Amino acid sequence: MDVPMTSPQVQPTHEQPLYQRLADHYRRAIDNGVLAPAERMPSVRNLVRTHRVSLSTALQACRQLEDDGLIEARPRSGYFVRAKHRTVMLPASEPDLGVLPGPANYVGIHDRVSEFIAQCERHTTSINLALAAAAPEQYPAEALKQAMIRAVRQHPTMLVDHVPPHGHPELRTVLARRALELGMNLGPDDIVVTHGCIEAVNLALRAVARPGDTVAVESPVYFGLLQILESLGMRALEIPTSPQHGLSVDALELALQTHPHLRAVVVVPNFQNPLGCVMPDTEKARLVRLCERHQIALIEDDTYGLLCDDNQLRPAIKSWDHTGNVIYCASMHKTLAPGMRLGWMTGGRWAARVAMLKFAQSRSNEPLAQVAVAEYMGSKAYDRHLIRLRRQLKSQREHIAEDVARYFPPGTRLSMPEGSMLLWVEMPGQRSSTKVFERALAHGIRIAPGTMFSNSDRYSHFLRLSCGSPYTPQMAQAMRTLSDIVAEVG
Amino acid sequence: MDVPMTSPQVQPTHEQPLYQRLADHYRRAIDNGVLAPAERMPSVRNLVRTHRVSLSTALQACRQLEDDGLIEARPRSGYFVRAKHRTVMLPASEPDLGVLPGPANYVGIHDRVSEFIAQCERHTTSINLALAAAAPEQYPAEALKQAMIRAVRQHPTMLVDHVPPHGHPELRTVLARRALELGMNLGPDDIVVTHGCIEAVNLALRAVARPGDTVAVESPVYFGLLQILESLGMRALEIPTSPQHGLSVDALELALQTHPHLRAVVVVPNFQNPLGCVMPDTEKARLVRLCERHQIALIEDDTYGLLCDDNQLRPAIKSWDHTGNVIYCASMHKTLAPGMRLGWMTGGRWAARVAMLKFAQSRSNEPLAQVAVAEYMGSKAYDRHLIRLRRQLKSQREHIAEDVARYFPPGTRLSMPEGSMLLWVEMPGQRSSTKVFERALAHGIRIAPGTMFSNSDRYSHFLRLSCGSPYTPQMAQAMRTLSDIVAEVG
Repeated sequence: MDVPMTSPQVQPTHEQPLYQRLADHYRRAIDNGVLAPAERMPSVRNLVRTHRVSLSTALQACRQLEDDGLIEARPRSGYFVRAKHRTVMLPASEPDLGVLPGPANYVGIHDRVSEFIAQCERHTTSINLALAAAAPEQYPAEALKQAMIRAVRQHPTMLVDHVPPHGHPELRTVLARRALELGMNLGPDDIVVTHGCIEAVNLALRAVARPGDTVAVESPVYFGLLQILESLGMRALEIPTSPQHGLSVDALELALQTHPHLRAVVVVPNFQNPLGCVMPDTEKARLVRLCERHQIALIEDDTYGLLCDDNQLRPAIKSWDHTGNVIYCASMHKTLAPGMRLGWMTGGRWAARVAMLKFAQSRSNEPLAQVAVAEYMGSKAYDRHLIRLRRQLKSQREHIAEDVARYFPPGTRLSMPEGSMLLWVEMPGQRSSTKVFERALAHGIRIAPGTMFSNSDRYSHFLRLSCGSPYTPQMAQAMRTLSDIVAEVG
Repeated sequence: MDVPMTSPQVQPTHEQPLYQRLADHYRRAIDNGVLAPAERMPSVRNLVRTHRVSLSTALQACRQLEDDGLIEARPRSGYFVRAKHRTVMLPASEPDLGVLPGPANYVGIHDRVSEFIAQCERHTTSINLALAAAAPEQYPAEALKQAMIRAVRQHPTMLVDHVPPHGHPELRTVLARRALELGMNLGPDDIVVTHGCIEAVNLALRAVARPGDTVAVESPVYFGLLQILESLGMRALEIPTSPQHGLSVDALELALQTHPHLRAVVVVPNFQNPLGCVMPDTEKARLVRLCERHQIALIEDDTYGLLCDDNQLRPAIKSWDHTGNVIYCASMHKTLAPGMRLGWMTGGRWAARVAMLKFAQSRSNEPLAQVAVAEYMGSKAYDRHLIRLRRQLKSQREHIAEDVARYFPPGTRLSMPEGSMLLWVEMPGQRSSTKVFERALAHGIRIAPGTMFSNSDRYSHFLRLSCGSPYTPQMAQAMRTLSDIVAEVG
């Protein structure tokens, strides 16, 4: 034993299986530097003896640490603490606040996205770095399955009963309670359950603006939002957004001088897609006041807010709102269950109009899934799941970032987000992300080219890499291949 | 025994329980007049002896016939065949084809509907004649519950997997096969699964028209459609519609002379809501050709099409479409599972735009419910359910119609639909349906006043009665109370 053991025995608790407690024990040792990089882990046999655990528990703990990228197995030598490379890389370039593209001819993003999907479908994908969701095994499939079966059994006529409006009361109650943690004081009646955050943002935009109106969005911004605006006949005014601090409130203020008739601002303040940045609290507060002063509706999309590495939730912009000028939208999609398509929103001073539009657009969501999710989200298991998911995403993101730092051409820039699963990679020398995308596809690797995140072509030398999947040897190989492609394209 | 028994023994089959076969046996006898009205049914003991069935089977069969309104129990005397009143009543008035209201100020229907809902919520409802759905017990709750549990078990990661676009292939395959019965030749890829027919109609309208455009609708028409148009900023041009033959193609042709820029026609050709009428095939074909000639999109809402009394499906308008000018929309809502909110559509020549709008509006539907419903809809049990539901709705509708004929004031008019669950009652003497609605509510009875079925006030002396619930003694009492109210209001 080359490490002093402070806890002679690792006790199981109700919250965590034994192997996880054991893994956490060594995780702390590695984080503290007690176990330094390249140092040898205690052997599995040693773990069994020291902690009086079974062989299988010791093995599981090692595998967990390996999955998390903290240790690596060397043939015939056991496990070693992995080196933290953290190669120094410049953060992605800050935008030029002076350059404000006019509301571009917003028709066309759907064609780009369709072309992207069509191209993807023509190739077999083995590694998907384009999908902004964690891998299925990182969500609590079994617990949700059981909750669903219980819901069906406990409400045997729910599938055939008339659906009550606005969403199921149990889910709305849980959501209101969870919203407290984000700084919002909502009652269940303030909440409308929607078909994903996508429907919520649709309803929010339809509530505050009309076709032909101009809406300010971050730049770069997730293509889903550009598609929504295009489909609604609204114009996107792209506001410079910092890879470090999010939407530039200064730039927005500037934009208001030339675009006084802006109807709304849509913002993803926490772990923005694709940048991964979080707006500082001061800027969130400034944005709320600015929008109030100019009577511009502020639509907050908090899809990724819960996925913070440090388990410290960032407050919602809505928590600074005292006039009802902020519409808050969120989803259970990225955080809990991609296959359930549940989202929610609170409409602020447009609540009645939002309720009307939801009723006219799709009626209320079917209640069964809501009951199942309410049960799970009301339990401690949900908190444990979030903690686990955050840890996994952090580890996966760090692995991919490390590979970018190591293998991408010099001059590559990247800002490290503090949560969620996205990396926004700036390639040097104006490399074409479309070419990288196409060549990567031919190798079975999917990435999202920067051209999909703006109506302009400003981001054609960027890539969005989603780190939702476990870092496996295949993933490591794919990152090497991708690096080669980026180098070639240059 | 006062009835000759032709079949000495009623054999159970896999399709139908024994008691239903027994009930059907006597149903035929009553239909044929072999058992005449007011005649005594064979006693339960007699049934046991004649058919060699158990006491419980004989009782169940009698209860079934009683539920269907064919026989009635008299205290201490047994069951008697119920008199068929079929009081002669004039059908509801035909519309004046000359009077074409302009696209009314379409803003306002949502306020009417909201006010209606708010008023309903202020009163305890014991009898609901307003809800256009069958009672929960008339849907296959248990079978759907089991299908749902099987779907969860067979697809343990479906709740957490990424959702494939357009809807689940299994459901789309079943829908395409079922569409054959309605005269449509569709492939699974032609079908988009939606959140109810409401979303389908939204997408169809958004695909073919823009805010400010005028869209022709039937008059009277279900308020959900007027709400959709209002929410989309489109104008409804109400086309006179016959309580017997549906949308007047002549009136539409006339309207085109003064409104040449009509963008779309939305029509419910089979068992229209609220009229219950079916368009004759010749008119369906004429409508398709007229719309083609004028390049007007034709949107067909076939929500009620499967609910035909005689089990003879009416062809979809889409079956006359050879140019892709018809968008067909339907739902599983009224026919299978009100609590599952599943609908579907086929977009004709707007298929790509419909797919884009669906993606941008709410992404694909969650797959689990689709898998469960696909299993059920692909089975014989679904056909048996439909046959049972049609029979129940017919019987319930006939009971309510009989009560209207017997107890409503002279001069009341009513057309008897050949399917679905709705009755459109024309009260004599320009009685106010709003007053009837309010007074009925005070008695715990909900009806839908005629004012909800048009942006004009043309139908203020009409009521829509939904016959979705079993005809019970309470229902009979409610119909007497309602009749009294209608008489008083006069």
